[in-house]
Amino acid sequence: MSINSFGHLFRVTTWGESHGPALGATVDGCPPNVPITPDMIQHWLEKRKPGQNKFTTQRREADEVRILSGTFEGVTTGTPIQLMIENTDQRSKDYGDIKEKFRPGHADITYFQKYGIRDYRGGGRSSARETASRVAAGGLAREAIKTIAPDVQITGYMVQMGPHQIDRAAFDWDQIEQNPFWVPDAKAAVDWAEYLDGLRKSGSSVGAIIEVTARNVPAGIGAPVYGKLDTDLAAAMMSINAVKGVEIGEGMSAAMLTGELNADEIFMGPNGPEYSSNHSGGILGGISTGQDIVVRFAVKPTSSILTTRKTITKSGEETEIITKGRHDPCVGIRAVPVGEAMMACVILDHLLLHRGQIGKNQGLIGSKK
Amino acid sequence: MSINSFGHLFRVTTWGESHGPALGATVDGCPPNVPITPDMIQHWLEKRKPGQNKFTTQRREADEVRILSGTFEGVTTGTPIQLMIENTDQRSKDYGDIKEKFRPGHADITYFQKYGIRDYRGGGRSSARETASRVAAGGLAREAIKTIAPDVQITGYMVQMGPHQIDRAAFDWDQIEQNPFWVPDAKAAVDWAEYLDGLRKSGSSVGAIIEVTARNVPAGIGAPVYGKLDTDLAAAMMSINAVKGVEIGEGMSAAMLTGELNADEIFMGPNGPEYSSNHSGGILGGISTGQDIVVRFAVKPTSSILTTRKTITKSGEETEIITKGRHDPCVGIRAVPVGEAMMACVILDHLLLHRGQIGKNQGLIGSKK
Amino acid sequence: MSINSFGHLFRVTTWGESHGPALGATVDGCPPNVPITPDMIQHWLEKRKPGQNKFTTQRREADEVRILSGTFEGVTTGTPIQLMIENTDQRSKDYGDIKEKFRPGHADITYFQKYGIRDYRGGGRSSARETASRVAAGGLAREAIKTIAPDVQITGYMVQMGPHQIDRAAFDWDQIEQNPFWVPDAKAAVDWAEYLDGLRKSGSSVGAIIEVTARNVPAGIGAPVYGKLDTDLAAAMMSINAVKGVEIGEGMSAAMLTGELNADEIFMGPNGPEYSSNHSGGILGGISTGQDIVVRFAVKPTSSILTTRKTITKSGEETEIITKGRHDPCVGIRAVPVGEAMMACVILDHLLLHRGQIGKNQGLIGSKK
Amino acid sequence: MSINSFGHLFRVTTWGESHGPALGATVDGCPPNVPITPDMIQHWLEKRKPGQNKFTTQRREADEVRILSGTFEGVTTGTPIQLMIENTDQRSKDYGDIKEKFRPGHADITYFQKYGIRDYRGGGRSSARETASRVAAGGLAREAIKTIAPDVQITGYMVQMGPHQIDRAAFDWDQIEQNPFWVPDAKAAVDWAEYLDGLRKSGSSVGAIIEVTARNVPAGIGAPVYGKLDTDLAAAMMSINAVKGVEIGEGMSAAMLTGELNADEIFMGPNGPEYSSNHSGGILGGISTGQDIVVRFAVKPTSSILTTRKTITKSGEETEIITKGRHDPCVGIRAVPVGEAMMACVILDHLLLHRGQIGKNQGLIGSKK
Repeated sequence: MSINSFGHLFRVTTWGESHGPALGATVDGCPPNVPITPDMIQHWLEKRKPGQNKFTTQRREADEVRILSGTFEGVTTGTPIQLMIENTDQRSKDYGDIKEKFRPGHADITYFQKYGIRDYRGGGRSSARETASRVAAGGLAREAIKTIAPDVQITGYMVQMGPHQIDRAAFDWDQIEQNPFWVPDAKAAVDWAEYLDGLRKSGSSVGAIIEVTARNVPAGIGAPVYGKLDTDLAAAMMSINAVKGVEIGEGMSAAMLTGELNADEIFMGPNGPEYSSNHSGGILGGISTGQDIVVRFAVKPTSSILTTRKTITKSGEETEIITKGRHDPCVGIRAVPVGEAMMACVILDHLLLHRGQIGKNQGLIGSKK
Repeated sequence: MSINSFGHLFRVTTWGESHGPALGATVDGCPPNVPITPDMIQHWLEKRKPGQNKFTTQRREADEVRILSGTFEGVTTGTPIQLMIENTDQRSKDYGDIKEKFRPGHADITYFQKYGIRDYRGGGRSSARETASRVAAGGLAREAIKTIAPDVQITGYMVQMGPHQIDRAAFDWDQIEQNPFWVPDAKAAVDWAEYLDGLRKSGSSVGAIIEVTARNVPAGIGAPVYGKLDTDLAAAMMSINAVKGVEIGEGMSAAMLTGELNADEIFMGPNGPEYSSNHSGGILGGISTGQDIVVRFAVKPTSSILTTRKTITKSGEETEIITKGRHDPCVGIRAVPVGEAMMACVILDHLLLHRGQIGKNQGLIGSKK
Repeated sequence: MSINSFGHLFRVTTWGESHGPALGATVDGCPPNVPITPDMIQHWLEKRKPGQNKFTTQRREADEVRILSGTFEGVTTGTPIQLMIENTDQRSKDYGDIKEKFRPGHADITYFQKYGIRDYRGGGRSSARETASRVAAGGLAREAIKTIAPDVQITGYMVQMGPHQIDRAAFDWDQIEQNPFWVPDAKAAVDWAEYLDGLRKSGSSVGAIIEVTARNVPAGIGAPVYGKLDTDLAAAMMSINAVKGVEIGEGMSAAMLTGELNADEIFMGPNGPEYSSNHSGGILGGISTGQDIVVRFAVKPTSSILTTRKTITKSGEETEIITKGRHDPCVGIRAVPVGEAMMACVILDHLLLHRGQIGKNQGLIGSKK
Repeated sequence: MSINSFGHLFRVTTWGESHGPALGATVDGCPPNVPITPDMIQHWLEKRKPGQNKFTTQRREADEVRILSGTFEGVTTGTPIQLMIENTDQRSKDYGDIKEKFRPGHADITYFQKYGIRDYRGGGRSSARETASRVAAGGLAREAIKTIAPDVQITGYMVQMGPHQIDRAAFDWDQIEQNPFWVPDAKAAVDWAEYLDGLRKSGSSVGAIIEVTARNVPAGIGAPVYGKLDTDLAAAMMSINAVKGVEIGEGMSAAMLTGELNADEIFMGPNGPEYSSNHSGGILGGISTGQDIVVRFAVKPTSSILTTRKTITKSGEETEIITKGRHDPCVGIRAVPVGEAMMACVILDHLLLHRGQIGKNQGLIGSKK
């Protein structure tokens, strides 16, 4: 129930601020005997790391993860795993202007109102830097999933940037790793680069929609009614900085469908039920169907922009602010590996939860299975 | 952490199936000395009750709530409150056809795959009937909120049915109670009635979008990073049957905004900060700003329709199904009071959580307050 | 984390007061397909029921359990199980004298100080009547354990009443069911009857020590360091009304042992490790060894006695009180089935928790197994 | 629900092993604006640190705590606080003999059976070294308590070592800091030194009983029935390594009392209720009375002794073992600051939990208050 934790059995608590000495994730409940090295986790952190191209903040962080506990001779021991990332780029001079002023669209005002603390060093706990801890935990979760459901594949990608959507007809899994936006549409990658470059030069920013798909998740994980798989995914994604909406399968568009269009018809395949479509996003009644689990979330544009905006100071005086410093014109880019990490943590957690309550699936359909 | 529970301090566990003897909510952590009578809760159950007009299922339930524990002489005692609703309409003959067949778009297949149980009596635990328990708990939460933050007002209403959206320019709070759809737009109410009547007669169904607004919530409630107010709201709404998407403030459209448009500018008012707009939906960094908290969720169309659909049986044979019986052409209508109830529970929970960790807000802005 | 709940995966929330309409247990996380009928649970409630002989309170309760949810066609469905017991004996006139006065040694004063409520009707939530809910949940847990670890046997018995201890040399499992004290020593049963009859006639009361043993629990359940099996057992037993001490294995006497005496030597048996002794009470490092799990707890004497005691009123005036009405001269007697129930719930919970995180034991010792 | 965490609102997760790079405590839910520096925490770690005299293990650890997150300019921010202690003394050669053999009375066998991992480097997660993390968290809790209930005083001391008990008539608070055993009886301190020196020289070890008293805790904290103050204290103390029994107030001896002797009579004092005695240990019905809260726990002797004991190897062969290396003849000595730390964490947690649900006490007794 800890406010900085998530997960039922695979339980992740993140800690640390953007400008403190370090941040990390305390992971409890990981199965034992999962092969894990820092490299396996580092792989995913590299994907999220800022400063890799002109489209992400030029703030440079080594983002090097250390495993401080919970492993022995290259495998997990079943005890808590501490994943620590030291902050190496703690320059705070860029942020001096915001010491007294609140940034419109930023959490510094609500943090101050709640806690009475004005940590002006760059967002503190509300900084997107916190998501590095999630990516580290997600890297570990991926390895643990392999020991239980080895076919599971988790892939995130951007499907919309500002007003520009991908062309679903041109969807190509192989394109995702080929461009800085993790976009599965080669033409969009080119167009978006031009679009974002313009925004970047003007000191503006824009939002995005990220989709994360988990393939080959076994049917039967999830649980009614507050431990639903989609409930936990919604919470996981909404907890990411700057996220304002979450969709499963058809998402908000489900409102526009009739019952005939929405209901995925069921057929019998060689390995169990198959479906004519996947409006459900792989989840019915909070439990996985065996189809692809499909989640989307919208990330708002960063509030750090070079346009003057009206605001107030800590003492209540009206003023204006320009947020200089290092910015992400589209923070949604770096949210892709974060969304994947959250998906991995939730899937692993539900695999364990299912095994705990049920052991293995009780209901087999048909003799073909 | 219980899978059928939600809330940190105000903790609700719902139990019961559509066709068992009873269902209800076990509520733990309610403050003491909250005046409460069954009538206060019944008021909200009446709002949700089916069979009140031709647009909701004709299944008739008394939905009478009993308070079995946790009160004494008309006030809460601080101990667990058991809210029980007996099922009076347990006719199950209507559902005989589905004993062996799975309904496309329904959770009966995943429940069977997980648990090995085929409770063919009408949805069992996955039935929307479970939401009566939530409405009961929400009614209690509303009374408890009054003792802590008496100005809070929670109102739900429908903003989209199928392809038809409300006209925001015609938004009128007073219209909400005047029509069977809880729609704040008089003209839409008339148009939608005609539209839905057509769907009902053809045995079809359609989805909807519900918006729930909480006004006068104090600034400072909520908590990083997994106990965020928006995280808990997303989970609360996504846990409702048939919900496929959740939005806070600008929601999925945040993807289309630039930083300039998205950031609500801040001014100093007589009672604290005021904002030029509310793209944030009243939440920044997971903490309330003091503006209206605005949540939307999409409800998919019910899978019980009169059109033949392809499906399989428990033993894996391919077949077809028509779901006869009593249906809701738009289950979204009855989701309005459910969304309100979830909002009430989450707001109360965060008021208590805030008081527990912080006592009262630590950071006051300006001398005017 | 709910304050009226316990258990990680098998999660029990009890609700209800001694003089309200009903009380019960909301049980979440039970495995599906566990055969269960009300009779199976009633069996254990009968054991706890008051008024069965002159040594327990003459307050009469039918203590009839109803299963309101979570089962279908005689088996559990995996969804929440509501176990309700209606209060039939709600006479409150006996308690009139205590409406304004606090009873020394009773929780009515602290409940009033905390909640501001004086539920004078007989203890309210602090009444031992609450333990009926635990016994019901324990009955269910026993059936679920049978489906996972069928050889487990859980037995409680009294080992001390007032100053009188059993003779361990005369320990006889078969005696336990043969006397009203559940004492495994035939001679003690006779002696204690005489002793307690004297106390009863004089309107006094006395404490007791109950021991609960779980045999044939598999090695490997439990978890460091706050989910230890002994941690959860200590909490489970200490949460029972009137309990003031809990011991595992050697218990408080472990203080007097040297390392040589305390360490149970290990040998290799046909089915795995065997031990020369069981000072550990079947638990090392919070994890079961496969030996008998042995827990003891001390129950204080009831505060309801016929001797005048000094006390104060709600308004702070000094006065005296005699608690007339129906009493248990030794509430420890009825604590025996309660202790068994808590042991059953904890064992089942840890079987599920272990299966969730680990699947099955990872480390087999020796080729003989 | 995390298995390595405790606390409802002030939530502590410990991580790390005796021979890994570091260990620590992740603390969530601490109130903001609590003044805290590493020195304030270090003070308590010094008290626990081994190697300070001949009666504790000669293993030397700097035990230097670093605060990696959750503070800014010398106060807590309300976000997670990471307390890290690096392991500096990682010599493992002393333990080589136990690589294949299990130590009787030690958790290495159950850890192996559960997890399939044999971390032979000195106890791993089951090492008493883990308690350093608790002491660090407790140091923080003490400072947070000061901001809410400044008069609370928490003191631990030893009341029994082996067969030797203190003389309660000679109890002197000022003696506690004057001897290496934290014993409040000057004569006992001298006698025990001689006794323990003999045990140390013979390579033996012995158990102990520690008592922890919290003075000036306000009446009204704690909650029925599984969040009782005594329930949480029992779990907190039982979770400490080597603890086999926990008592509140009269403890196991409550079994021997009659109702007349056990019930503390109540009088009216200038600041509220006063009691003739404190058999209850300051807790009635799980809620504090305002009297001293008194908890005792028994620590078994360490299993590391110089006498040959029979055991088995990982492969199931029978053999013998002598545990050479650095030992504590009485680990109970170092358990004193650990018990204090757990008391501090539980008291703080319940102060917050009470404030969350109740705000402040609702029931005032008498007009004098």
